[in-house]
Amino acid sequence: MPELRRDPITGDWVIVASERAKRPSDFRSHSPGREEQGEAPCPFCPGNEAMTPPEIMAFRHPGSQRDGPGWWVRVVPNKYPALGIEGDLNKTGIGMYDWMNGVGAHEVIVETPEHGKQVAFLDNRQLEDVLWAYRARYLDLKKDPRLKYILIFRNYGRVAGASLSHPHSQLVATPIIPGVVAGELEGARRYAEYRDRCVFCDIVRQELDEGKRVVAENKHFVVVAPYASRTPFETWLLPKSHSASFAAIPAEEQTSFAVVLGETLRRLHLCLEDPPYNYTIHTAPCDTDEDGGFHWHLSISPRLTIAAGFEMGTGIYINVTPPEIAAEHLRATDPDGAAVAAGETSVGGEKGRA
Amino acid sequence: MPELRRDPITGDWVIVASERAKRPSDFRSHSPGREEQGEAPCPFCPGNEAMTPPEIMAFRHPGSQRDGPGWWVRVVPNKYPALGIEGDLNKTGIGMYDWMNGVGAHEVIVETPEHGKQVAFLDNRQLEDVLWAYRARYLDLKKDPRLKYILIFRNYGRVAGASLSHPHSQLVATPIIPGVVAGELEGARRYAEYRDRCVFCDIVRQELDEGKRVVAENKHFVVVAPYASRTPFETWLLPKSHSASFAAIPAEEQTSFAVVLGETLRRLHLCLEDPPYNYTIHTAPCDTDEDGGFHWHLSISPRLTIAAGFEMGTGIYINVTPPEIAAEHLRATDPDGAAVAAGETSVGGEKGRA
Repeated sequence: MPELRRDPITGDWVIVASERAKRPSDFRSHSPGREEQGEAPCPFCPGNEAMTPPEIMAFRHPGSQRDGPGWWVRVVPNKYPALGIEGDLNKTGIGMYDWMNGVGAHEVIVETPEHGKQVAFLDNRQLEDVLWAYRARYLDLKKDPRLKYILIFRNYGRVAGASLSHPHSQLVATPIIPGVVAGELEGARRYAEYRDRCVFCDIVRQELDEGKRVVAENKHFVVVAPYASRTPFETWLLPKSHSASFAAIPAEEQTSFAVVLGETLRRLHLCLEDPPYNYTIHTAPCDTDEDGGFHWHLSISPRLTIAAGFEMGTGIYINVTPPEIAAEHLRATDPDGAAVAAGETSVGGEKGRA
Repeated sequence: MPELRRDPITGDWVIVASERAKRPSDFRSHSPGREEQGEAPCPFCPGNEAMTPPEIMAFRHPGSQRDGPGWWVRVVPNKYPALGIEGDLNKTGIGMYDWMNGVGAHEVIVETPEHGKQVAFLDNRQLEDVLWAYRARYLDLKKDPRLKYILIFRNYGRVAGASLSHPHSQLVATPIIPGVVAGELEGARRYAEYRDRCVFCDIVRQELDEGKRVVAENKHFVVVAPYASRTPFETWLLPKSHSASFAAIPAEEQTSFAVVLGETLRRLHLCLEDPPYNYTIHTAPCDTDEDGGFHWHLSISPRLTIAAGFEMGTGIYINVTPPEIAAEHLRATDPDGAAVAAGETSVGGEKGRA
């Protein structure tokens, strides 16, 4: 069972994976564990369903069998979960330290049966189904009173922490409200207290007025390079209408979200030659996702630079590309140029492998 | 002039380096900028002093000339500073956003004239002089009322953000109290308010009692793998006596600090085969560094794993090596085995290059 331990100074929680503990030899540069897995069979490919734990849900063609081929989106438990679904928290003090069992959920959303496909080049309908799968898993896990927060994210490329190249996202549900989330909630609350408006609604308004950090806009969403971007080409997708939870999205907006997400990923792909990235969905905690005190959004962070001692010691990021310049480049990139680049997917797919 | 911009939600500041802005082509994987610099002359080597801005201070042999060879520790302004030393802050609002000039200081402490030397294998006297240089620069910059915080840190290895391999540390002075620092101060304050004791003094006491996370101990310092280590083999050097500022260290403790720092770096080097790492000195802000509300220490974070979407979205780190296991391995590593490994410095030095 993983453990949750709390830093007695900052209050931040850490997950300690004590069962599959790594020893020094696992980190040595020449150890086999750090080499590419080569052509090992992919557990996310159709036909290899038995390599994953039994599926939680899937969108399948009629007549296909659970845990067999015939699906187009498939959700499975993570084989090496950061948090385990069974058990109680058993919150305990160890002298001055706080401890609890690592209870939660860790799932993988396999986004397509096609191993070499890039999410940026999925068709809109397929990408929308990925988003519907996110929502279905969110709403199901929300019923578990032990779970306080549900994060959905995507690691793309080895540099961004992906260990398998087959397109997939992940979901982790935590028994606590994570520090980053608490910080955003508190910031939004403070702003609302002072100005009686939503900080994200104000961002949408000011960015659309100023225009220079806007990458794209459609009926329901605006895509911006945020004013205080931490990293070059950081990009946010903000819904125009105020809603605390991404799971409350109406069907029409979901279609719009899929279109704008695909376009944005293609812009980044074309502008930066298939960069590694992480995206995360920022949404309200489970028990307050209907009270309006937050404004959900998705942030994409390309991994183009390295956060080092200065960032660690201060939390201040040094961004070498002003967001106005990033937005200018992304705006000028035609996501429909993607039709051409899409023919090169196998090349991109190779680069994106692992 | 760099800019400081504040995230309107989290309140975190970001440095935007607008003058040497990087464009998409700078990040493309095949652009020359991303290739190794090969055998370009090293600006930190003796004889190449003219490649850096004029030196701020140096420990020099008698008769040697400023900005010439003959030094054993040399401090220079960073040629590409994250923050600039000239000018006023000009704090400004841009609609809902907060902005100020990127005023501060960014210096490089060149730790030895020997290009291929590893800091872990510097002799104690040399390492102590590096620490005295840290202190001298801290005390000098503290006089500037614009500067609120001074961070001293070291990036070692390309993965840890080092762009030059010649041994060096960095100092950045900021015109604001950084978020990470504010969080640690607030945590220490909260703990002291509740228990009327210093959280770090309590950590020292509990760790020495329990023993299982202790790596080493001498008269003045204890080295531990912290209870809530964020990353495998995270290691803290804690002074046993309570002091808010590392700059207030008595001479006897400085000697002890140099010995224990060198030993700890050698343990990590030997145990993990020359890992990339960042170390940072956590000390109180300039204007409260004498009031006792903090307890300075040094933290070392080997870069063995990748923080990805989950860490970004939550702030919760997943650590695959429990600190009890890390401490066991580091304790079992004889830093005097370093005498043998020191003969291999050139190999390690190659690996550590850039």
